[in-house]
Amino acid sequence: VKTPLGEFELIARLCANLPASRRTILGPGDDCAILAPARSRQLATIDSMVDGVHFKLAWGTPELLGARALEVNLSDIAAMGGVATACLVNLAIRPGLDARFFDRLYAGLRKAATAAGVDIVGGNITRADQLAITIALLGELRAGVLLRSSARPGDTIYVTGTVGDAGLGWRILDGRLKASGAARKYLVDRFLRPTARLAAGQKLARMRPAPAAIDLSDGLWQDLGHILECSRVGAEIDAAAIPLSPAYRAVAGDDPESALGTGEDYELLFCARTRLPAAALSRRLGVPVHAIGRIVKGRRAVVLNGQSGRSRPAPRLKGWDQLRARD
Amino acid sequence: VKTPLGEFELIARLCANLPASRRTILGPGDDCAILAPARSRQLATIDSMVDGVHFKLAWGTPELLGARALEVNLSDIAAMGGVATACLVNLAIRPGLDARFFDRLYAGLRKAATAAGVDIVGGNITRADQLAITIALLGELRAGVLLRSSARPGDTIYVTGTVGDAGLGWRILDGRLKASGAARKYLVDRFLRPTARLAAGQKLARMRPAPAAIDLSDGLWQDLGHILECSRVGAEIDAAAIPLSPAYRAVAGDDPESALGTGEDYELLFCARTRLPAAALSRRLGVPVHAIGRIVKGRRAVVLNGQSGRSRPAPRLKGWDQLRARD
Repeated sequence: VKTPLGEFELIARLCANLPASRRTILGPGDDCAILAPARSRQLATIDSMVDGVHFKLAWGTPELLGARALEVNLSDIAAMGGVATACLVNLAIRPGLDARFFDRLYAGLRKAATAAGVDIVGGNITRADQLAITIALLGELRAGVLLRSSARPGDTIYVTGTVGDAGLGWRILDGRLKASGAARKYLVDRFLRPTARLAAGQKLARMRPAPAAIDLSDGLWQDLGHILECSRVGAEIDAAAIPLSPAYRAVAGDDPESALGTGEDYELLFCARTRLPAAALSRRLGVPVHAIGRIVKGRRAVVLNGQSGRSRPAPRLKGWDQLRARD
Repeated sequence: VKTPLGEFELIARLCANLPASRRTILGPGDDCAILAPARSRQLATIDSMVDGVHFKLAWGTPELLGARALEVNLSDIAAMGGVATACLVNLAIRPGLDARFFDRLYAGLRKAATAAGVDIVGGNITRADQLAITIALLGELRAGVLLRSSARPGDTIYVTGTVGDAGLGWRILDGRLKASGAARKYLVDRFLRPTARLAAGQKLARMRPAPAAIDLSDGLWQDLGHILECSRVGAEIDAAAIPLSPAYRAVAGDDPESALGTGEDYELLFCARTRLPAAALSRRLGVPVHAIGRIVKGRRAVVLNGQSGRSRPAPRLKGWDQLRARD
């Protein structure tokens, strides 16, 4: 549109018909939102999606963008085993985007929030050169908590779903990898439409002892590294056991290298001491679960390479890092 | 520095020695922070400061920038009459800023948080083309609540401190207004070092009935407009009663026009039905307070111009709007 959007017009427009539950005493429109006192321990996290860094507008619809911005935040709540409750949204808007764009972005955000039972309680709009969506998300712990620091030698390491798909999807969207047909669509969707494993996280938080967990945002290798560092343990990963989707195998072959190094999958990695086989665990959590290795003493992570039989030491864990992705 | 900063190194560096109280069960370092259940109704707000939009790096030190980013958020808690408790910080970092810069920015942020009793419980760092600091701030209501919607005809309209100073300071810093000496320093400091009126807000929230209130971030005229819109009332403002600082008068004369239209003062505007004279109210709140007009029936705001005797109708309230500031 030609007319520059005023902050107040846009805020008023976007704040109509937002999802709200009884816990929200006062939603957007005053200096702060007012929430009912939390009955249990609260979770709080903040995350940001920046145009040109985490996504490009041409890659998807505004609705997908809005939904994805919340979903990656929800994944942090899932990784703690919590229930998401309320969020605050900061939009940095740049010239050239019209009110219809933001209507659609908020439609996607609203839909994702409603699906997760999250109230959108407040927002702020600021001008900038780059579009960015920053969301602060609150949650509650209704059972135990999944920490990065509670992995113990002897734990089995599991992941939900398959890994590496979103990283390939990202590279396809960015023109750095070629793919076509169903495999392309699957991988691209895994990047554009992540689903936070909220229900699985909540079920894990009811297990005793509560597993250690993290969500796969930075890549399996790096995210595992956070668990190892926080828990002061090591790990042995069986490369052949890393769950790869048929689409991944069609595009990148059977080598899990890319799956180890690229992020954005928003699956859960967890370390548990359970006698349940993976199939039974899958049924209980409601998502496919695969055992990929075990926690060991020491501070070393090795990948036991199923194909060559060699072990790969990892003196310094590295993985997916948005800050490095352009270097 | 030549070496590009990694997200994890920087986060680890900045998250050392953050203020935390007993309410913070788990601070930065996991997927979410964990907070003890709130005992009272909670407040939540989010705000963002973008380089080139809200500030320019050359205007002040990194410490001032960090402190100011929190202070403008604290002002929203003050305007509700609340106590600030915890915050989450999202840093959008651009190339060319070194670790020392962020150390200093966080030093300022940490100092402001400590002074206000706020725990810094989490953060996120993302790459961008523009430096931006987005803070989500939580608080609690320990007494009544100051709303925008509770102004009633017959209320007296008050402001704390003086108004218009920060707007002049901004224009001086931006090279659009000339000033020198003590007046310049005072006005520039009012922009760079705002102080959220937390204690005054908390004291107002103990009055019965609780006053309507808003903080002066967008300019007196526009912020008053929010109160009028939310409360469905009108107002008569006595131009001659608007408190102007000696520095304001030295630089802009006795005309309150600029004070009505420019923001960033972070004083409180409140509407109360009290028999206390302004001097007694000042003593009770611990800040200078001036009566500047009254709430009336109808939806019209007029400025009764003390000098010319003419009234100025305001068919459409406008004020300070960062989105329009560059148009």
